[in-house]
Amino acid sequence: MTTYNPVSAEFLDAVRAVIGADYVLTDAEKLDMYKTDEEYDPRRFRVPEAVVIPGSAEEIAEIVKLCNKYMVPVTVRGGGTSLADGAIAVCGGIILLTERLNKIIEMNTEGMYMVVEAGVRTIDIQKMANEAGFLYAGDPCSAESCLIGGNLATNAGGNKAVRYGVTRNQVYSLEMVTPTGEIVEVGARLKKCSTGYCMEQLVMGSEGTLGIITKATLKLLPLPPFRFDVLAVFLDPHMALSLVERINKAGINPTSIEYMDNSYVRGTADFIEFKGAPHYEDGIYVIVTVETYSEDELDMKMEQLSELCEEAGAVDVLEADDRIWSMRRNCQESVSLISKVSLTDDVVVPVNKIASTIKEIMEISTKYPFPVPVKVNAHIGDGNLHLVLCKCDMSDADWEKYVHEFHEEVYAYAYAQGGRLAGEHGIGAKKLSYMEEFTPAGELNLMRLIKRAWDPNNILNPGKVFNA
Amino acid sequence: MTTYNPVSAEFLDAVRAVIGADYVLTDAEKLDMYKTDEEYDPRRFRVPEAVVIPGSAEEIAEIVKLCNKYMVPVTVRGGGTSLADGAIAVCGGIILLTERLNKIIEMNTEGMYMVVEAGVRTIDIQKMANEAGFLYAGDPCSAESCLIGGNLATNAGGNKAVRYGVTRNQVYSLEMVTPTGEIVEVGARLKKCSTGYCMEQLVMGSEGTLGIITKATLKLLPLPPFRFDVLAVFLDPHMALSLVERINKAGINPTSIEYMDNSYVRGTADFIEFKGAPHYEDGIYVIVTVETYSEDELDMKMEQLSELCEEAGAVDVLEADDRIWSMRRNCQESVSLISKVSLTDDVVVPVNKIASTIKEIMEISTKYPFPVPVKVNAHIGDGNLHLVLCKCDMSDADWEKYVHEFHEEVYAYAYAQGGRLAGEHGIGAKKLSYMEEFTPAGELNLMRLIKRAWDPNNILNPGKVFNA
Repeated sequence: MTTYNPVSAEFLDAVRAVIGADYVLTDAEKLDMYKTDEEYDPRRFRVPEAVVIPGSAEEIAEIVKLCNKYMVPVTVRGGGTSLADGAIAVCGGIILLTERLNKIIEMNTEGMYMVVEAGVRTIDIQKMANEAGFLYAGDPCSAESCLIGGNLATNAGGNKAVRYGVTRNQVYSLEMVTPTGEIVEVGARLKKCSTGYCMEQLVMGSEGTLGIITKATLKLLPLPPFRFDVLAVFLDPHMALSLVERINKAGINPTSIEYMDNSYVRGTADFIEFKGAPHYEDGIYVIVTVETYSEDELDMKMEQLSELCEEAGAVDVLEADDRIWSMRRNCQESVSLISKVSLTDDVVVPVNKIASTIKEIMEISTKYPFPVPVKVNAHIGDGNLHLVLCKCDMSDADWEKYVHEFHEEVYAYAYAQGGRLAGEHGIGAKKLSYMEEFTPAGELNLMRLIKRAWDPNNILNPGKVFNA
Repeated sequence: MTTYNPVSAEFLDAVRAVIGADYVLTDAEKLDMYKTDEEYDPRRFRVPEAVVIPGSAEEIAEIVKLCNKYMVPVTVRGGGTSLADGAIAVCGGIILLTERLNKIIEMNTEGMYMVVEAGVRTIDIQKMANEAGFLYAGDPCSAESCLIGGNLATNAGGNKAVRYGVTRNQVYSLEMVTPTGEIVEVGARLKKCSTGYCMEQLVMGSEGTLGIITKATLKLLPLPPFRFDVLAVFLDPHMALSLVERINKAGINPTSIEYMDNSYVRGTADFIEFKGAPHYEDGIYVIVTVETYSEDELDMKMEQLSELCEEAGAVDVLEADDRIWSMRRNCQESVSLISKVSLTDDVVVPVNKIASTIKEIMEISTKYPFPVPVKVNAHIGDGNLHLVLCKCDMSDADWEKYVHEFHEEVYAYAYAQGGRLAGEHGIGAKKLSYMEEFTPAGELNLMRLIKRAWDPNNILNPGKVFNA
């Protein structure tokens, strides 16, 4: 383990000289606001020693140099929406906020790209693109509150990944501050490139351990003017899950394929008070979104999709209107009706293994005395599933023990299928020990060699992803 | 510079003990066959000290360990189709052939992937995928002779990149032998992943400097059953080049958009003896291929494309039949009618800069006394252009001098546009000095840190991409 120094008055003065005293927070009350992100377990909170709010890449570079000089670790925080303790300063030191880097620098419709600073809200990027007739296809569920820098650092996923891929697929290039405080651009605005190492993809998804992303050039797509949303209701999970392969083979190229088990159908209908939810009692929902560039293509694919749903055994094929999407969006929140404390997990497997994985996880879960059966919603079109466990009135000790044992079994199964620990939430601090346990030693060693080469003092986001 | 040892009898005995004496070549005559790849300038040839032909990843790992022990550099050779001196052992040592790793291990239609060894020919992968109703979308122009390992190592491009992307977009995961001789798998067969560093993208395109790729899991797409090829003939290059933006904005999603200037139209028609080539005297060709999953979509897009071509100012819009594609495929070969010695270069710029870049390059070229005006063919849909210079009867000294000066100007212009030195041919040894010249120091330093961390003895493919 690296030994860090506490944040000293001398260090803080040096930081104030770079960014101004107003942007260095040390009040206990203010610091307390940054002790957690979307983590609700107080045992995992950590109050940072200071919070700094630089206004430019140049200022960030200076701060990082000071952190190296004084041996103070830096944890970068964007919108604070991490579900993996990614924005908690688990090794102490400072939290660096990117919120002042909030400019959309360029919107280029001819070249079909946008240049944005790391602190811009994802939804503002989506909106500006849409208004100009384009699509920015990155779409994490937290789009309204997260910042693009966080999306890039964690390679955020979301609902549109089936067609458009994840955040890393929406990016041409990045400007970043290296762990030693240099400003470097990686990547280029090119469709083809065979000129040196592809470092932009390495930095994306490294969760702030390899660099602080300060700016990005994002791809825009022509906005498909036509769209339809189908709700296929099934009574049998296997039939529901068989739809994915049928859709993929037919070349329909859907934007998303979302799955809600019946516990979510009931839970979310209750939560949003939607009385007439179709097949409330026994329905399993698959929501399919298709976007097209022409009305003819729309009609054609709509017809084709209806047939595929019926062939798969759907008992009902309806339009998925706003209420259905509202149910889907409220999956997470609806759990609060059942249990104050719950745990959302994120596992990913190959797309053709999603059906068997969901089945296996349900079976594994029956071995554990959780007060409510495990709840599953999933981006089934891309193999990414979210499991929710509810604590209800289970004792702390039992909850801790059974959650851990359940996860061990689930992760081992997922890895055996060629899956991984996280499809879109990242590893953060929360899954670090599982990362060390499940990643083959040779692969982990290659990651460590890069981290140590770029960040010899282990200054950037220590205690995340793996032990450097 | 690293100091290597000459290949010794002791080293060779140790290698023979690993792979068998039959697979270690030391005959002068045999070694001479491996002194070059697609390089035709004898001053750039280098005869390797030995050629080794291992049969498995395990054997490669053992050889790499021996190379580290004896300080002997390794250059990996696939199909030997490099246009950048990528397969020449420029620092001496051994050449390692992957041709015995020639098995297609798995063809999985349900999961839509193939697992192949590095020594499989790209065309065999394409064919096997097609026969099963799928598309492997990597398609370098050398597909008939290149091996997939080389495609992966150089991130090969080709004709289908507009729609499907380049080689790095067709890959789920790689098995590789690290520079220190460990067998490691990087990547996973997942559509979404946020679990540690994305090392597969780092290794692809690193031109054999970060690892020896031994196996890959490749993505398959459903094979689009419908296709049409349009030849749009223009008299003005700007009108021709304006077609790209129109097509992109209309959401047509073409597979390829290829450009041939009039010198190529005439040259290739002569070369393949095609008498009635349309607008032989003054035509500039743009060939557009569109693939679809339904006949309706085909009809719709064909009509839409015809209109776009007319709006762009095409004087003729025809079907691009086999003869037209044969012209396109023979661009390179047709040059031999004009000049025995010629030089093909590969530059890439942002797609919306391709028109102005081609114009600027033509202007730059007029300053130089080349015997024939520079010839341009381009994958204009992805911003990638190939320039051909003809030496004819120019003196060696003049040729050398003017080619260098011309390249300096062209590369400086391309970089100013956000372009790079190579879109698909790679840097190899041929462009190493330009790589060092044009890459910003901070970016180059990050690459070097990775190379040194993974390959402390600089054993893998030294003298390529940059000076480690």
